[in-house]
Amino acid sequence: MHKGRVEAFSDAVIAIIITIIMVLELRMPEGGDDWQALLPLYPIFLSYVLSFLYLGIYWNNHHHMFQAVGHVNGAVLWANLHFLFWMSLTPFVTRWMGENHFAPVPVALYGIVLLCSAVAYYILERTLIAAQGDKSQLAMAVGAEIKGWISTACYSVGVLVALVWTPWVALALYSFVTPSSG
Amino acid sequence: MHKGRVEAFSDAVIAIIITIIMVLELRMPEGGDDWQALLPLYPIFLSYVLSFLYLGIYWNNHHHMFQAVGHVNGAVLWANLHFLFWMSLTPFVTRWMGENHFAPVPVALYGIVLLCSAVAYYILERTLIAAQGDKSQLAMAVGAEIKGWISTACYSVGVLVALVWTPWVALALYSFVTPSSG
Amino acid sequence: MHKGRVEAFSDAVIAIIITIIMVLELRMPEGGDDWQALLPLYPIFLSYVLSFLYLGIYWNNHHHMFQAVGHVNGAVLWANLHFLFWMSLTPFVTRWMGENHFAPVPVALYGIVLLCSAVAYYILERTLIAAQGDKSQLAMAVGAEIKGWISTACYSVGVLVALVWTPWVALALYSFVTPSSG
Amino acid sequence: MHKGRVEAFSDAVIAIIITIIMVLELRMPEGGDDWQALLPLYPIFLSYVLSFLYLGIYWNNHHHMFQAVGHVNGAVLWANLHFLFWMSLTPFVTRWMGENHFAPVPVALYGIVLLCSAVAYYILERTLIAAQGDKSQLAMAVGAEIKGWISTACYSVGVLVALVWTPWVALALYSFVTPSSG
Repeated sequence: MHKGRVEAFSDAVIAIIITIIMVLELRMPEGGDDWQALLPLYPIFLSYVLSFLYLGIYWNNHHHMFQAVGHVNGAVLWANLHFLFWMSLTPFVTRWMGENHFAPVPVALYGIVLLCSAVAYYILERTLIAAQGDKSQLAMAVGAEIKGWISTACYSVGVLVALVWTPWVALALYSFVTPSSG
Repeated sequence: MHKGRVEAFSDAVIAIIITIIMVLELRMPEGGDDWQALLPLYPIFLSYVLSFLYLGIYWNNHHHMFQAVGHVNGAVLWANLHFLFWMSLTPFVTRWMGENHFAPVPVALYGIVLLCSAVAYYILERTLIAAQGDKSQLAMAVGAEIKGWISTACYSVGVLVALVWTPWVALALYSFVTPSSG
Repeated sequence: MHKGRVEAFSDAVIAIIITIIMVLELRMPEGGDDWQALLPLYPIFLSYVLSFLYLGIYWNNHHHMFQAVGHVNGAVLWANLHFLFWMSLTPFVTRWMGENHFAPVPVALYGIVLLCSAVAYYILERTLIAAQGDKSQLAMAVGAEIKGWISTACYSVGVLVALVWTPWVALALYSFVTPSSG
Repeated sequence: MHKGRVEAFSDAVIAIIITIIMVLELRMPEGGDDWQALLPLYPIFLSYVLSFLYLGIYWNNHHHMFQAVGHVNGAVLWANLHFLFWMSLTPFVTRWMGENHFAPVPVALYGIVLLCSAVAYYILERTLIAAQGDKSQLAMAVGAEIKGWISTACYSVGVLVALVWTPWVALALYSFVTPSSG
């Protein structure tokens, strides 16, 4: 099976998610056409920037991974849909986090979606490698499994930290893990 | 006529539908930033998961079917648009069903849209086979017509069951038929 | 210049427009989870079906036209954007027409957008032919200019009829012209 | 790395942004189904036309630039995402400007987003040239750097003019710079 349509469909879904976040997030400021009217939007804008980065990184990683792939099978289609499902929850948790000014529970939920996305990405990676064979270019490009485990552990710690200590440390953890999870 | 653009257009439409469902469905919880605030969303979340699965299955099937296709004609373009029309009604019926906590009439309407999608998919399949000739790779890949008839019958029974007995059995029927209708 | 990206971009824009119409149009029924609750939606549903057909026809025509095209130039990119601009106004006029139960002015405005789309499509066609040379496959496929003039005349008459006589005859005119304007 | 998927992803994002602007902008007229009901929409319609033009020009330029490109690298993916980030803020500033009838601060903010997009486009251009080598077809096609600097200067002046003098001159400046910034 050719990989072209899986890539095209994933591109479309991620492009829509990344753009819908902005539409959901950046509501019109109420009362006034001056700079002060924009101030209440800052937590929403920050959570938008974080999610844009995080979705952009996943798109980049997805792109790199499929570059090294020769062909796909039915299992890959399903693993890819599973990954897109968790991505599709991002706009909801982004906005809930932004509207509640980074309160503990919304930040923890955001972390849970990040965690599930990371696990789904890992499953997709393994399914792709299984479809190519262990000696494939992809298996070599992806390298050790250890990176996936570290991401998963960090997101889990982040969720706990948000709930029992402070959401700001959790956000710092998320921001630190995401770019290096490629 | 090349099949590339029909695939690309279908990918874009299904990607948008699958993502819009989430946007329509998962409204912000009102009052509170704790776990309890999320509770009232569970029927909406469930109906979102069901529709994501159902649209994902159709995308997978659409993908497999067009893989086996050599070329398309004008009739295929129309059969494909007809299929996309019924798909495009999914977000509306998903949300109506979720907001009304799986009441009988919304569940029946959801089943009617599933039924029309299944019939439209079947028409698309036959139109594609007619465009290739009966001995084509597609005709062999698709196999017996019996599967299409069983899906259609099950959805019809589901709609009736939702109206005269209980929507939960109807939902179980839908969930059972959809994955096996490929 | 290759034509692939112009096709892909047009596909994405038309796919979004066709899907957004549904989102804008089909608002949740208020009060009730029975069949009666759906009744007030019928004019909106009808105008959605009309616009889905009309956009689907344009996508089909766009697809056929670009099939016969070898390469594109800067003027084609602009003519295509101009065509997409008028298409992008469709959701707005569709909804205004549906919400006002096919009142004269909204039906006339709908006709004006149809008219501008037809003119923009005609300009795109001529720009493409100019880019290929008169003896091209496209010039022969497109055939006589007379069809474009008839569409334009019919839409203009429709707009006038909606304003001075009755919107229903105008709608009949639109429905008659659109499928045959390919 | 092939450039196909970067183009496809950018096409999808820009297509969504250009279409979402229209959805955000053109709300239903309240009270009445006559021509007068449309009158209050004129500033919103004007700002929509301006943004459609501006996004269309960027899509055209993006298209031309990638036509001349042989291959891309990781830095290009990031520069492209950065460019798309600023584009994705366009619907928000377009609507704020339209809803406030082109008041000074919204017009200045619109100019700031134009300015950041222009800078991001310039960075993308330089990253692409660096990926191809200085003697590349792209380096020659893009030509002198002076054009980028003039755009940047004009947008900056526009922002200042909107704040200290009048937004209408700023809008004239934006409209003059955008088409010639390709």
